Amino acid sequence: MAIRVPKGFRLAGVHCGLKRDPNKEDLTLVVSETPAAAAGVYTQNLVYAAPVALNRGRTPSSRIRTVVINSGNANACTGEQGLKDAHAMARLAAQACGAEEDQALVLSTGIIGAYMPLDKIARGIESAAGRLGTDDQTLLAAARGMLTTDTVHKLAGRTLSLGRREIQITGMAKGAAMMGPNMATMLALILTDAPLDAATAQAALSAATGETFNCISVDGHTSTNDTVLLVANGAAGGKPLAGKDLAAFQRALNEVCEELARAIPADGEGASHLITLEISGCADRACAVQIAKTIANSPLVKTAIHGADPNWGRIVSAAGYAGVPFDPAGVTLHLNGFLLYQGGTPVSFDAKAVSESIRANRETLVQLQMSEGQAGVRFWTADLTAEYVRLNADYHT
Amino acid sequence: MAIRVPKGFRLAGVHCGLKRDPNKEDLTLVVSETPAAAAGVYTQNLVYAAPVALNRGRTPSSRIRTVVINSGNANACTGEQGLKDAHAMARLAAQACGAEEDQALVLSTGIIGAYMPLDKIARGIESAAGRLGTDDQTLLAAARGMLTTDTVHKLAGRTLSLGRREIQITGMAKGAAMMGPNMATMLALILTDAPLDAATAQAALSAATGETFNCISVDGHTSTNDTVLLVANGAAGGKPLAGKDLAAFQRALNEVCEELARAIPADGEGASHLITLEISGCADRACAVQIAKTIANSPLVKTAIHGADPNWGRIVSAAGYAGVPFDPAGVTLHLNGFLLYQGGTPVSFDAKAVSESIRANRETLVQLQMSEGQAGVRFWTADLTAEYVRLNADYHT
Repeated sequence: MAIRVPKGFRLAGVHCGLKRDPNKEDLTLVVSETPAAAAGVYTQNLVYAAPVALNRGRTPSSRIRTVVINSGNANACTGEQGLKDAHAMARLAAQACGAEEDQALVLSTGIIGAYMPLDKIARGIESAAGRLGTDDQTLLAAARGMLTTDTVHKLAGRTLSLGRREIQITGMAKGAAMMGPNMATMLALILTDAPLDAATAQAALSAATGETFNCISVDGHTSTNDTVLLVANGAAGGKPLAGKDLAAFQRALNEVCEELARAIPADGEGASHLITLEISGCADRACAVQIAKTIANSPLVKTAIHGADPNWGRIVSAAGYAGVPFDPAGVTLHLNGFLLYQGGTPVSFDAKAVSESIRANRETLVQLQMSEGQAGVRFWTADLTAEYVRLNADYHT
Repeated sequence: MAIRVPKGFRLAGVHCGLKRDPNKEDLTLVVSETPAAAAGVYTQNLVYAAPVALNRGRTPSSRIRTVVINSGNANACTGEQGLKDAHAMARLAAQACGAEEDQALVLSTGIIGAYMPLDKIARGIESAAGRLGTDDQTLLAAARGMLTTDTVHKLAGRTLSLGRREIQITGMAKGAAMMGPNMATMLALILTDAPLDAATAQAALSAATGETFNCISVDGHTSTNDTVLLVANGAAGGKPLAGKDLAAFQRALNEVCEELARAIPADGEGASHLITLEISGCADRACAVQIAKTIANSPLVKTAIHGADPNWGRIVSAAGYAGVPFDPAGVTLHLNGFLLYQGGTPVSFDAKAVSESIRANRETLVQLQMSEGQAGVRFWTADLTAEYVRLNADYHT
């Protein structure tokens, strides 16, 4: 469970003036000493940001040297100028570590529709390049550099011993809002010193994302900037992972991704509960995902959990409009382990005890079992609070 | 624009104990003196309520005599017992007006998963049958009998002169929450003295619903009970409407439905703005509806309007994840008449003036023009407020 900078990487997080508060990092620079395999998964939004366009063209890759990340400005809906600015950011980052321009990737998050202040970015990259390090404080500053309205940084790591090799996987993510499940995901960067070829890195990342970052939602609004990058520089030594070693790596990567993914709705804007939905007994996984997403995005379900109300009618009726065929008489619902609904009819239960169990725990478990087959999914979402409304009504353009 | 009881109908709204407040009507009885044509449009939710099942089997019809409506209990997720209870309600209403059981329709709204207290319903129907009338106060009481968390009753009417015949169309509706766009709609009852055969009534109602009740959303959560009924008793005299007269009737019916439909998000739970979305330039109407629904259900768009924030990035990015192909460079966005976005790049505008125009008006107009074709849609939704969260977190089972 160690969270540390994998071998062969150096990072920095600095303040360059994109955020108003001078104590908040808003630019992160990551440098690999050697060319690294890099894989990316990106937003499915048709209106995607300039850095997404740039990264799509450069991943999977076997020669990435640097990733520059900024918060405070999404560089989205900025047309041709935005694309030029993203390329300029990549060029500045590449120059700072002695690499070629196309060895750099760019992640941006923040306000949509404002042009990137390149002078601030240039000063930030210069400052970050002078402070690159590998200690814990530096890793924290780098993780903070990608945050927007997040209240906590999101870091996860795993250490694997594969024979004589010790491999480190360390990921950082940001979330908060504009988080919807039709995405490839929000910003996350996963670094590893494992040796991976580019195609394997891409396959491993896509597999992990499908069960983790693509199974979360805060408000169902798919962002213009969602991106997960995996950068693998091979500094742990040896040949590219394959076979049993690759399977062990995939399991650890999934764990890191799941930990980061859960951390996003847990820190969703205004959230008071992390809600885990376990949907089972479906004909196929796509059906289970569709039911999970529909429940996860129902404001009535989300407000019920916020109010510690075991209002199972809202959960069952949300499943009913998911667009997936099922037999209502074959549905069983548990909430925090209590049986609330079975066989199409109400079940008598201790509403006070269920309500108390919701109120007393930061996490709520909803288990919905259908009778159509064996497929299922785990999905994570946040409840909906007045604080979410306040934050998003007040966050002015 | 006259709102009055059409000829040949009598109504009553009474309190029978389903709502706690004894001053609030919770049961409405509608009686037609003669057998009437009746058409229905129902929820698409797989988990549909018992009265929906009953009405589906009885419409379209040419011999309906009575409609009984209750609020406070949805009779949904109540299994076999619920279906028996709905049939018992129909039987009681039919007996009260000397009709056969299958000449009655039933509408229920309120809490999901509680069995219907038939003793209260029986007393309510008896009391209502003794007070049937046609005056304005009675019409108001009847309209109030279907409300749940609505803050105002919803009535709309049109008077048509077709040759020597004067035809009245009067509708009542309820809304508030659990309002989603995959529906056939929330509860609405439209009475007319026009002569219509059953098939024509069904066609007219389906056409009107497609452009009105199916084009609204409060929270995207499709209810288990959504129903619109059209009851046409022909008391205006003459042969069933056809040709030009039918076209005039359809226009007036559409107007009544639109007025009732708009009134629902305008009185959405906690709503401070009625938002009208005009989507144009789409390849077909289904694409326009899909884009409209996605924008209408984005909590980020809804909170931005609540906060009087001209945050066009949220609107454009919501369109981008609607799942409909379009060229982002061909998008133009106006808000309350102000141009905010054009051709894939930001436009400079007076943010203060736009914000002030949102703040100063109860209605907000969002016009999104695409460049794929000629199809479009008008769609209505509500903003999202802290009051919505409070209402739904506190509304305990």
